[in-house]
Amino acid sequence: MSSMGAPSDETKEMDSRNLSSLQSQTQTPLVRKVGIPPRQNFFEEFQSTVKETFFSDDPLRPFKDQTKSRKFILGIEALFPILKWGRSYNVAKLRGDIIAGLTIASLCIPQDIGYAKLANLAPQYGLYSSFVPPLIYAVMGSSRDIAIGPVAVVSLLLGTLLQSEIDPVEHPTEYRRLAFTATFFAGITQATLGVFRLGFLIDFLSHAAIVGFMAGAAITIALQQLKGFLGIKNFTKKTDIVSVIDSVFSAANHGWNWRTIVLGASFLVFLLTCRYIGKRNKKFFWLPAIAPLVSVVLSTFIVFITRADKEGVEIVNHINGGINPSSVKEIYFRGDFLGKGFKIGIVAGMIALTEAIAIGRTFASMKDYQLDGNKEMMALGAMNIVGSMTSCYVATGSFSRSAVNYMSGCQTAVSNIVMSIVVVLTLEFITPLFKFTPNAILAAIIISAVIGLVDYQAAILIWKVDKFDFIACMGAFFGVVFASVEIGLVIAVSISFAKILLQVTRPQTAILGRIPGTTVYRNTQQYPEATKVSGVLIVRIDSAIYFSNSNYVKERILRWLIDEEERVKRNYETRIQFLIVEMSPVTDIDTSGIHALEELLRSLQKRNVQLVLANPGPVVIDKFHTSNFANLIGEDKIYLTVADAVAYSSPKLTEDP
Amino acid sequence: MSSMGAPSDETKEMDSRNLSSLQSQTQTPLVRKVGIPPRQNFFEEFQSTVKETFFSDDPLRPFKDQTKSRKFILGIEALFPILKWGRSYNVAKLRGDIIAGLTIASLCIPQDIGYAKLANLAPQYGLYSSFVPPLIYAVMGSSRDIAIGPVAVVSLLLGTLLQSEIDPVEHPTEYRRLAFTATFFAGITQATLGVFRLGFLIDFLSHAAIVGFMAGAAITIALQQLKGFLGIKNFTKKTDIVSVIDSVFSAANHGWNWRTIVLGASFLVFLLTCRYIGKRNKKFFWLPAIAPLVSVVLSTFIVFITRADKEGVEIVNHINGGINPSSVKEIYFRGDFLGKGFKIGIVAGMIALTEAIAIGRTFASMKDYQLDGNKEMMALGAMNIVGSMTSCYVATGSFSRSAVNYMSGCQTAVSNIVMSIVVVLTLEFITPLFKFTPNAILAAIIISAVIGLVDYQAAILIWKVDKFDFIACMGAFFGVVFASVEIGLVIAVSISFAKILLQVTRPQTAILGRIPGTTVYRNTQQYPEATKVSGVLIVRIDSAIYFSNSNYVKERILRWLIDEEERVKRNYETRIQFLIVEMSPVTDIDTSGIHALEELLRSLQKRNVQLVLANPGPVVIDKFHTSNFANLIGEDKIYLTVADAVAYSSPKLTEDP
Repeated sequence: MSSMGAPSDETKEMDSRNLSSLQSQTQTPLVRKVGIPPRQNFFEEFQSTVKETFFSDDPLRPFKDQTKSRKFILGIEALFPILKWGRSYNVAKLRGDIIAGLTIASLCIPQDIGYAKLANLAPQYGLYSSFVPPLIYAVMGSSRDIAIGPVAVVSLLLGTLLQSEIDPVEHPTEYRRLAFTATFFAGITQATLGVFRLGFLIDFLSHAAIVGFMAGAAITIALQQLKGFLGIKNFTKKTDIVSVIDSVFSAANHGWNWRTIVLGASFLVFLLTCRYIGKRNKKFFWLPAIAPLVSVVLSTFIVFITRADKEGVEIVNHINGGINPSSVKEIYFRGDFLGKGFKIGIVAGMIALTEAIAIGRTFASMKDYQLDGNKEMMALGAMNIVGSMTSCYVATGSFSRSAVNYMSGCQTAVSNIVMSIVVVLTLEFITPLFKFTPNAILAAIIISAVIGLVDYQAAILIWKVDKFDFIACMGAFFGVVFASVEIGLVIAVSISFAKILLQVTRPQTAILGRIPGTTVYRNTQQYPEATKVSGVLIVRIDSAIYFSNSNYVKERILRWLIDEEERVKRNYETRIQFLIVEMSPVTDIDTSGIHALEELLRSLQKRNVQLVLANPGPVVIDKFHTSNFANLIGEDKIYLTVADAVAYSSPKLTEDP
Repeated sequence: MSSMGAPSDETKEMDSRNLSSLQSQTQTPLVRKVGIPPRQNFFEEFQSTVKETFFSDDPLRPFKDQTKSRKFILGIEALFPILKWGRSYNVAKLRGDIIAGLTIASLCIPQDIGYAKLANLAPQYGLYSSFVPPLIYAVMGSSRDIAIGPVAVVSLLLGTLLQSEIDPVEHPTEYRRLAFTATFFAGITQATLGVFRLGFLIDFLSHAAIVGFMAGAAITIALQQLKGFLGIKNFTKKTDIVSVIDSVFSAANHGWNWRTIVLGASFLVFLLTCRYIGKRNKKFFWLPAIAPLVSVVLSTFIVFITRADKEGVEIVNHINGGINPSSVKEIYFRGDFLGKGFKIGIVAGMIALTEAIAIGRTFASMKDYQLDGNKEMMALGAMNIVGSMTSCYVATGSFSRSAVNYMSGCQTAVSNIVMSIVVVLTLEFITPLFKFTPNAILAAIIISAVIGLVDYQAAILIWKVDKFDFIACMGAFFGVVFASVEIGLVIAVSISFAKILLQVTRPQTAILGRIPGTTVYRNTQQYPEATKVSGVLIVRIDSAIYFSNSNYVKERILRWLIDEEERVKRNYETRIQFLIVEMSPVTDIDTSGIHALEELLRSLQKRNVQLVLANPGPVVIDKFHTSNFANLIGEDKIYLTVADAVAYSSPKLTEDP
């Protein structure tokens, strides 16, 4: 991406000083052959690549030389890690998990109710999704810190995608059924990626794009909360900032309810203060964790005694109690809703996956334990499949709750079990108490929760490190904020791919010069003091040569040559007679690459310039031989260092005009 | 793709021998700083990248410091190269061009009539397409050897794509109109790519995939000719080998016409013999070039005197004479055919482009002149746009005719002008003579023409050089032969992309060991004699570290470490206390990459292993500083060579268990 040269020449020649200077005295370069590695047959080569691609983490290693029965047990343990860590479980760990579990429960209950709204579903579905999925994950998942449940971004994404298919108000049943269908296929997608070990696919969504997307989603979600926060009746269905702001102000003169605003605002201040304190002083991490539940209780009580709901303060009203009803029959397995649910499921599933894996990896590296991405995907997939059959919508790992879980000292996934037990008790016994909970509070809770997703420090770092990543980041952000979640997502993905393609299609090349007094050859752009060897042009290619860049590389080198020849002509210097190509960074080459080199060689011969190669890698030299290019250019034209190549060329220079 | 290591350590340490051995004596490594390049501001960085991506060929260079009027003239010349080379045109060149022009004309006339059939169009449209487009190209194109006109593969592709939209027999008019619409948008696509300098996009179709696709298309086309060759009346519309063979044999008992077969077979033998002679002895290159016309004349005469057409030998019958009628009004600029034409146009345009550019580049490198890909695309685009308005369908550069053009000594694009003049004369005066030309001969001519597209030598080379390219090649081939042209194309493209993604997502890593008696550190897989330094693990990363591979790189390195630690434990050796990462091949790194390194550092600290970096590149070291990673790891942990790093680490080893 940047125009500076690559390293590999740095030391090589600096250290080859003594040796090459010796050569330049004797003028007889000692040609040291580049070792040609043992040939692999097709099967070995294929096998090794497949292994590195799909089984790079060598998942079967523990199974090596074990008895059949042992293998079976290991297999079961691999599928259900709880059987493994369960054995070494003890009271100390349990205490940690209980505390953590209670903390995240207190955080998740109000969040769930709010997030269900984002997905245009009745509040209880949020709670349902915090009961079954965490249990499944606890027995199948391998992360110790992740907290499972519905999350803001996925809820919003699911909500918008479903909304574009069915109106949740007019056809609530169909809408709900489609939601379960999408959840089912989200699970299928995740499990499939895991089973076929395609986990690496999610690595194609760049960090920068995710940062931008998350921030944008957070803003969008916060904006959506203005409905409940200002107590606006008729609110836009669109999620872009323009239409939201518009419908907020069009409602300003009549639609706003001051009681709602006062209530919401005061509790939002409270929540943000707690959040601030918790951030400033790690000792008080529990403060932001319990603040939401506290505000729910308080506000509910206030509304109950003041009966503010009579004054137009919107309240939750009724939440269906009782545990998750079965929803197997509700999933569409035929009809055109099947296809729609399938599409939505794939998108929601991938995003949920990206979030969960990112969280899992973060905490795994904090506590230093390995996390098998593909196994994680199977666990997440299984939990969503089961979830879709028990009235849950897409659940995944939540940034905020996982952090709280970690800080309140969770030891294992048992904290998730504790949480889901609390959720069940809530569903069974205390849902009626939520009757008077004002929506404004839920809005405030969601706002204070999603603020954490706006990671401006990351954005600043991205700006510092890589300007183009920053563009990707901003593209995703503005896409979400000004257009919609899908569009933001599309932008994020396409920019990520564009970057990959750019990276492989435009490799760096550099002109090398000799640092005065040494035989170090370095990028002349980077080291202006480096002097060119008269009659010789030294170019370095900084990437593997594949069909995607072979033509560019060839033409770039020729252009370097033409420029140099013009310069030389202007200054009446010795004409360029040798082109040395430094190939150290060229790790691989394919047929197109070899074709390009052959064309380069032909053009150079026409120009009566000799091509000399320095330090081609083992793979490359091997392919040079199999493709007969080595003979074409001549074995004596391939050297191990630029210094050797120069030592070979310079004496051969003729002083012809 | 392969499991062997990369070069860059080869020499470096071999040559750093004297220096490092000195260090290991004194035990005080002299830390040589890696030069940090001058910071670029965002604008410079952005500019340089945009330039390298879109203007890498520096097209505006000749315009530098010129007067306004001069710039204008240069601009016109750039758009119409003929104005430039026209000035230095002379009789000698004209002679060459006339001979070449006549030769390719004699070759193209029969081919055109046949190819039009492939596109399900009346014969004259093939001839039309060899009149206007070559003229446009002659004034705008910059290749001197390419022969423009309809080609087999594009005709077939266009035919199948159009057929799937409209039936050419039932709705000939709509079919023809859609063909012109597709041609128009093919031209638009090509011109657009050229204007916006997106020429590099076609580099994403890998050489291997093209070889397979072309061979498959050739076989399919040859099979299609069995209809005319065996004189079968009701022939399948499908192009896959199974249904073709099926309909051939189902017609065997009644549908075959022995006269047709005898006629076709004998001339096919004649054509192939000429082709063989021409190949064996370059002196007779003209033999295969004129053979088609000869066979047309002969066979037409034979049919005319024997009136074999009465015996069921299919003949061309009527060809509309006269030059191209305008077809501006026939192009669909509204309605749903607009969309369909647009889609088909993009596909056909891209394929035509790929073929033309490939040919242009080949001959340009043979005669050593530069070819501006983007300018070529504008020329090809313009010629197809004009063509679509003058009753032509998609034209491009033809492999076979361009080769003949080159060998018969063409000097400039004037040979195309000569050809198109001959075509016009044919249209005006001698189309009636084609009345009795048997279709079997056209079939034979096409078969002998497309055989050249089966480049088995290329396939063998691909197999030798890169097994995975070979899979891509075969995938495209079988896709075309057994399914359809589109499917083969989709396979070709997707495999090409898969390879690119694979290449960036799974970079190579290697464990380095010390070659006994030296301080050379090399890939231990490749050099089994290399011995590991006790207590130190040396890993080399062979690629830039981006979001697409950062996680893999991190986990791979950790896995190397874990394996090594197990080995060490088994053998009661000193435990690993230093992990040296050789970064020479790492040309760039992004935020995800730095995150990965930070996580690696954290995990290592947990394991109480020290991370030491060797020879990070300028870009990388720069980003280490901006992202503050340099301080995190500690400046004193970054060395210029592996030897330095080892010299620093080894003495610090403690003998704790």
